[in-house]
Amino acid sequence: MPSYSIAEIAGIVGGEVVGDGSIEIRGVAGIKEAVTGEITFLANPKYESYLVSTNASAVITAGGNGSFSGVIISIDNPYLAFLKVVRLFAESPIEKYSREVHPTAIIADSVKLGKEISIGAYVVLEENVSIGDRTTILPLACVNEGVKIGSDCLIYPHVTIREKCEVGNMVIIHSGAVIGSDGFGYARDGEEHHKIPQIGIVKIEENVEIGANTTIDRATMGVTLIGRGSKLDNLVQIAHNVVIGENSVVAAQVGVSGSTELGKNVVLAGQAGLVGHIKIGDGARVGAQGGVTKSIPAGTSVSGYPAREHSFARKICAATARLPDLLKEFRNLQNRLDALEKGKGSGPSAEDD
Amino acid sequence: MPSYSIAEIAGIVGGEVVGDGSIEIRGVAGIKEAVTGEITFLANPKYESYLVSTNASAVITAGGNGSFSGVIISIDNPYLAFLKVVRLFAESPIEKYSREVHPTAIIADSVKLGKEISIGAYVVLEENVSIGDRTTILPLACVNEGVKIGSDCLIYPHVTIREKCEVGNMVIIHSGAVIGSDGFGYARDGEEHHKIPQIGIVKIEENVEIGANTTIDRATMGVTLIGRGSKLDNLVQIAHNVVIGENSVVAAQVGVSGSTELGKNVVLAGQAGLVGHIKIGDGARVGAQGGVTKSIPAGTSVSGYPAREHSFARKICAATARLPDLLKEFRNLQNRLDALEKGKGSGPSAEDD
Amino acid sequence: MPSYSIAEIAGIVGGEVVGDGSIEIRGVAGIKEAVTGEITFLANPKYESYLVSTNASAVITAGGNGSFSGVIISIDNPYLAFLKVVRLFAESPIEKYSREVHPTAIIADSVKLGKEISIGAYVVLEENVSIGDRTTILPLACVNEGVKIGSDCLIYPHVTIREKCEVGNMVIIHSGAVIGSDGFGYARDGEEHHKIPQIGIVKIEENVEIGANTTIDRATMGVTLIGRGSKLDNLVQIAHNVVIGENSVVAAQVGVSGSTELGKNVVLAGQAGLVGHIKIGDGARVGAQGGVTKSIPAGTSVSGYPAREHSFARKICAATARLPDLLKEFRNLQNRLDALEKGKGSGPSAEDD
Repeated sequence: MPSYSIAEIAGIVGGEVVGDGSIEIRGVAGIKEAVTGEITFLANPKYESYLVSTNASAVITAGGNGSFSGVIISIDNPYLAFLKVVRLFAESPIEKYSREVHPTAIIADSVKLGKEISIGAYVVLEENVSIGDRTTILPLACVNEGVKIGSDCLIYPHVTIREKCEVGNMVIIHSGAVIGSDGFGYARDGEEHHKIPQIGIVKIEENVEIGANTTIDRATMGVTLIGRGSKLDNLVQIAHNVVIGENSVVAAQVGVSGSTELGKNVVLAGQAGLVGHIKIGDGARVGAQGGVTKSIPAGTSVSGYPAREHSFARKICAATARLPDLLKEFRNLQNRLDALEKGKGSGPSAEDD
Repeated sequence: MPSYSIAEIAGIVGGEVVGDGSIEIRGVAGIKEAVTGEITFLANPKYESYLVSTNASAVITAGGNGSFSGVIISIDNPYLAFLKVVRLFAESPIEKYSREVHPTAIIADSVKLGKEISIGAYVVLEENVSIGDRTTILPLACVNEGVKIGSDCLIYPHVTIREKCEVGNMVIIHSGAVIGSDGFGYARDGEEHHKIPQIGIVKIEENVEIGANTTIDRATMGVTLIGRGSKLDNLVQIAHNVVIGENSVVAAQVGVSGSTELGKNVVLAGQAGLVGHIKIGDGARVGAQGGVTKSIPAGTSVSGYPAREHSFARKICAATARLPDLLKEFRNLQNRLDALEKGKGSGPSAEDD
Repeated sequence: MPSYSIAEIAGIVGGEVVGDGSIEIRGVAGIKEAVTGEITFLANPKYESYLVSTNASAVITAGGNGSFSGVIISIDNPYLAFLKVVRLFAESPIEKYSREVHPTAIIADSVKLGKEISIGAYVVLEENVSIGDRTTILPLACVNEGVKIGSDCLIYPHVTIREKCEVGNMVIIHSGAVIGSDGFGYARDGEEHHKIPQIGIVKIEENVEIGANTTIDRATMGVTLIGRGSKLDNLVQIAHNVVIGENSVVAAQVGVSGSTELGKNVVLAGQAGLVGHIKIGDGARVGAQGGVTKSIPAGTSVSGYPAREHSFARKICAATARLPDLLKEFRNLQNRLDALEKGKGSGPSAEDD
């Protein structure tokens, strides 16, 4: 493990040292777990009370030092600064996994392997697969016929990448993810469902990350596309012919139905579901468990089922909470009106409760 | 790749040629992707504008030729017709995967293998497994002790089929699916949960398709049953002792709780959830994200949470959208009534907004 | 298979024999499936009608014998008693899977193996892994560098346990589960998302069961914790830094977001979703598909979206069902009030329908 002085670290992240910059830092950790010689960070004011008790030697923060006895690196965006520090100490795949091909890997003769690759035990690379430079494929992954994987990728154990799919550079795919399974398409004939062969592919652009056990179906024809820089969490379902724009974020257990298109910088929160054949504009956001039944303009936030503009959805939500009381008050109002109409109402009646 | 004249194709699907039937077709593709020499189809009028720009040499459609310059095959159900054409050009598993047993496959002595099977690298077939004729098992799949798999099946990489489960003929199971995991059953004793051994099986009837990373739990005792011709999408959860009738369709991320029984031709849309121990009648439909809390009669459509008859659920939905305004109007009405009761109300008061 | 007399079985479970206790029982089965020589149980009065037709030789039940012609073992908690009987006849992993290391298992030199272990075909155990006594690891599982697994564990095929994670004694992990995948954490910089290295681990305490294809992310720093005796069903998502207390139950397809803490004896029903950074008190319960947006006190039941105290949520739910009618009645009331204010209203007007 390398070590850096606090002053060196402040220089790297562009922050200001408050205290002794000469102290050596040998690692990073959470504010609760850090020990002497380690650096941590405080971005969420909620955790400020931990400053008293942490054993970290240095803290990266935007605020003051509170009652912290160690050294502060002061900076506007402590989260991003901390990220840079974590990377100083984190091993890259290229250091962590030895650059070799395990003798049990099965590699078809027609496979093209880049330089400095790492292929784990019991990996299967079928005919005409190509693997870019410095890419790491961990044990028991299966890469089917004709798949192209770029450089600097990291493919975890038990990943399946089905035939002819394309994976760009610097892509990470977590364990159990399935890329290119058949789209769910049938032609109905009476009561029977006839499978429509799914002859398209999945294309994953550069810098994408795909979570564990996530499934991305190949297109019926053409391409299911995951745009550059987008991040998908675990157990996400992406149906055939979906297009996800650049730098979008899809949280765990989200489902996107067939042929739906997401723009850039879209955020889908956990367990949201989108029907097929709609368009989600750039920068739109869907709340957790939201059920999206029609297209959403760019920049809009929606939530609820069926998903509606977020501030309206919140009003509806607040209103439904008053509904049981409203029903009682309504009956009361009806009684008062009945009395008035009968000509005997002269004052407010008691609330019925 | 084979090639067929347009006239031959029209004959196979039962359609009518409008244009030169002698042109040779060498493949199929989507209307946007097709090139000269390929055939495509147009079922959804939404995509009619693509007729001008497509490079396809022929289009199967129910409508006119619009401004399309190529040949039309005219037919009532273009989707089904196209499916037949796709199959003309798609390889079957039996052509696509060589009929051999990979030397790294581990096959117990007691395993019974049918004719013309294909077993991939690092497949594990445990004791007393039987595999029917022409079945294909792709790399890294695991078939545990005593499992019976029928003929003409296609089992993708990383599938697990647990001990003693039964899979019928012509079944497709996608990557990462787990068939026969233990049902989720415990007997509570104070605060502790004691596992109830799950000694039943999963039985999958013929012509079923199971999506990627879908999980189907074995019965506590007896059978969890997936009926003939039913299709399950990705990431579906089927709990112990569930019964799914014939030709039912279960979309992605649906969950069906223990002992619930679905009839024939049931459709569960994406992310729907069903409680345990209920019955879903033949032909019933559950909307996306629907939460079904009680049995549903045959032929009924339900949606929402808790799921209600669909047209009623839509009314409730529309009504909740008017609720914030209703609350305001209600307060206004109360004020007007107060005024009337005090004897001073003589005309409508202004809306408070 | 062993056999026991009914009297012996009654002694083991602490029940009373009604009938001939000398009859030999050779197995257990469901009330519908049982044949002569087998014992079954009846806990749910709903299935009492099966007593007439079952072929079981004995039934464990809290009620009377109805029209059952065989022998009864009468006991207060028939479910727990039956569980003990099932265990009499069920094989433990130690009997079921031979105590040997398959020659194709890849085991790094630094791995420490306990006594009487079972390691299946194509299992990969990386450097510095340790495996406790009597633990069973089934084919094609992958255990990454530095993982510690306790004794008497059962790890099913295709499980991935990522580097440095810790698994306690008597833990069961079902097929396709991924333990220790990277948490979903990025620092945003303009439109790009920079991955935050996830350098913590997952710790699973003793007696936990993890369902098929469930994903548990490693902590950003520190520990994602699954407490002693907790049970997670299939396709569950546990995000980074989540803490689950002891003896909690998490049903299928539930998602728990980052840093959320569950107490002891918590029950999350199927498809429930929890936002991050909240606390769920001991013994709290979340209904199926519930969307929990804030902390829940101990002992509380919540349901719906957003999740509210259960009895209140039910009232809201019932009230929304009356909403379409309410809107009509409200319009009627408005008309009556209009009429009154104009001085011409003297009796109730007709309902507009």
